Amino acid sequence: MGSTGDLGYPQIILQYSSGFLVSKVMFTACELGVFDLLLESGEPLSSDAIAGHLATSTTGMERLLDACVGLKLLAVELTEEGALYRNTDISNIYLTKSSPKSQYHIMMYYSNTVYLCWHYLADAVREGRNQYERAFGISSKDPFGAMYRSEEEMLKFMAGQNSVWSICGRDVLAAFDLSPFTQIYDLGGGGGALAQECVSLYPNSTVTIYDLPKVVQVAKEQFIPTEEHQIAFHEGDFFNDLIPEAELYILSKILHDWDDDKCRKLLEKVHKACKPGGGVLLIESLLNEDRSGPLETQLYSINMLVQTEGKERTASEYSRLLEAAGFREIQVKRTGKLYDAVLGRK
Amino acid sequence: MGSTGDLGYPQIILQYSSGFLVSKVMFTACELGVFDLLLESGEPLSSDAIAGHLATSTTGMERLLDACVGLKLLAVELTEEGALYRNTDISNIYLTKSSPKSQYHIMMYYSNTVYLCWHYLADAVREGRNQYERAFGISSKDPFGAMYRSEEEMLKFMAGQNSVWSICGRDVLAAFDLSPFTQIYDLGGGGGALAQECVSLYPNSTVTIYDLPKVVQVAKEQFIPTEEHQIAFHEGDFFNDLIPEAELYILSKILHDWDDDKCRKLLEKVHKACKPGGGVLLIESLLNEDRSGPLETQLYSINMLVQTEGKERTASEYSRLLEAAGFREIQVKRTGKLYDAVLGRK
Repeated sequence: MGSTGDLGYPQIILQYSSGFLVSKVMFTACELGVFDLLLESGEPLSSDAIAGHLATSTTGMERLLDACVGLKLLAVELTEEGALYRNTDISNIYLTKSSPKSQYHIMMYYSNTVYLCWHYLADAVREGRNQYERAFGISSKDPFGAMYRSEEEMLKFMAGQNSVWSICGRDVLAAFDLSPFTQIYDLGGGGGALAQECVSLYPNSTVTIYDLPKVVQVAKEQFIPTEEHQIAFHEGDFFNDLIPEAELYILSKILHDWDDDKCRKLLEKVHKACKPGGGVLLIESLLNEDRSGPLETQLYSINMLVQTEGKERTASEYSRLLEAAGFREIQVKRTGKLYDAVLGRK
Repeated sequence: MGSTGDLGYPQIILQYSSGFLVSKVMFTACELGVFDLLLESGEPLSSDAIAGHLATSTTGMERLLDACVGLKLLAVELTEEGALYRNTDISNIYLTKSSPKSQYHIMMYYSNTVYLCWHYLADAVREGRNQYERAFGISSKDPFGAMYRSEEEMLKFMAGQNSVWSICGRDVLAAFDLSPFTQIYDLGGGGGALAQECVSLYPNSTVTIYDLPKVVQVAKEQFIPTEEHQIAFHEGDFFNDLIPEAELYILSKILHDWDDDKCRKLLEKVHKACKPGGGVLLIESLLNEDRSGPLETQLYSINMLVQTEGKERTASEYSRLLEAAGFREIQVKRTGKLYDAVLGRK
């Protein structure tokens, strides 16, 4: 049985059963501002002080803090005045709102939106479709209509995606030498964290964020500094509107939202628009060819069922989609982190 | 940072974030009957065959199966006819309905009831109280009224508790030599799996399951075989009704449902009823005195916030409650599994 341990006691089963408790403890400590308060305070605090500052019950806060200690997200010291809590290094870096590598926003999206959609996983598997209707009472026919059902939800999603690129962006953009490409379009570029990483890594490039008008407006106003002259914007729906000519198109976590048919149509359109000698960069989480994992990607593929019309794919599935659209010289680079890179040339 | 790994990439944070996805994959594969079908079939099956038998979509089932492979709950073999899936040993033992050690029922309770209550963890911590109202639109003033809001919910809870004792019951009952006690009351004994374990381990004992009338009726009709003559029943509410005289009272996962005040009242009542020389056996998950863990118990203590009026406690907290009620010679035994044992004598 290897890693599943002693068959007389199902440690792994108990750990999987408690998975949602672990997620919600971390998400909730983020949401209530525990890590932000402990960063700002600069000194360890008691559970009473934390509960007081954050306007929560003491009985609830004490238990939440203790579970964070068990998860090594907080450290506790027993003193004469009682237990005092402080952040661990990993919490300071990833769980505080103000950190450049903050994962706060993706956690809020997971905790408030994804968690509830996943309550209906059995229905999603039975029906083979997303669960916005059961989870939020909204039509599931247009997944992005559902995901962007309010400006608040859209902002949460955009900020969440930006969090992901703060830890994975550099690796996927450095997987291939993109310096030959100076005119780049980031199709569905959202909040623009990947575009910012791109112009920082490739100082001769300009990146145009192509996205729905309401997304582009929010990206301009709230995410991209006005002094950032290497980043431009284009409002449009890449399925129905024109895609302008460029040297490189980035499709980052786009194809995984759609079925093979829509992916083929989009890639054909990109191929037509692409300058000869140009290319397309897919950034996706790649499944192993032998179905053995990676576990995270297998879980994300189920999330695509629960939330979109797409799925995660293997490198050879992406290669076939690219080839069918006319792309050549396809190269695949695994980064060892969550997201990988596939480059095709025209 | 030790187990939190490389600070440049927050592996542990990503793992915690995916916890709820892992839980729901396992729960849903159980709910849809994947492990039962693969046990019955006696041979590996394709995802199409499994989807066909279980009346689900193929696109959803295939992804669910692949994620179970990533979790080592299934094994996959790539053959000429495609991928074929089979149970791993741990799934046969713990995830099939028919296995004597099946955890199916506790998982259904976790998946359908506990998961939704935990969606409101931030509210629970703010307010310091359980979340039946937000999760199910029912009053949270009487937690067992809420938990037993329908016969179906009550059955799910009773069967779930029985699952727990199928893996932890023997250890907690063998923690002390209980053979001197022949007249035993199991207060709040529910579905009776612990009582059955007790009469099997101590063949000279008789165990009376004391619980609310509707619980006792279901225990009699659906859980305890009529030929089991060492088990008796007593209908009552241990807070408001008489507790008959006996040599040993088992309070298994009872005190953790209630605040200190109610625990003291209940233990005083038990002490009065107890024969001289008799005792009380608490079966609970014990917190470490230094707040360091165990993680599972810290999580359960939050669950007590979300679902009851109680909390998990340390060995010294239980000892103080027992001493205040008049019990003496208090002994504590940790089992190394989820539940531990504390014995007090009159």
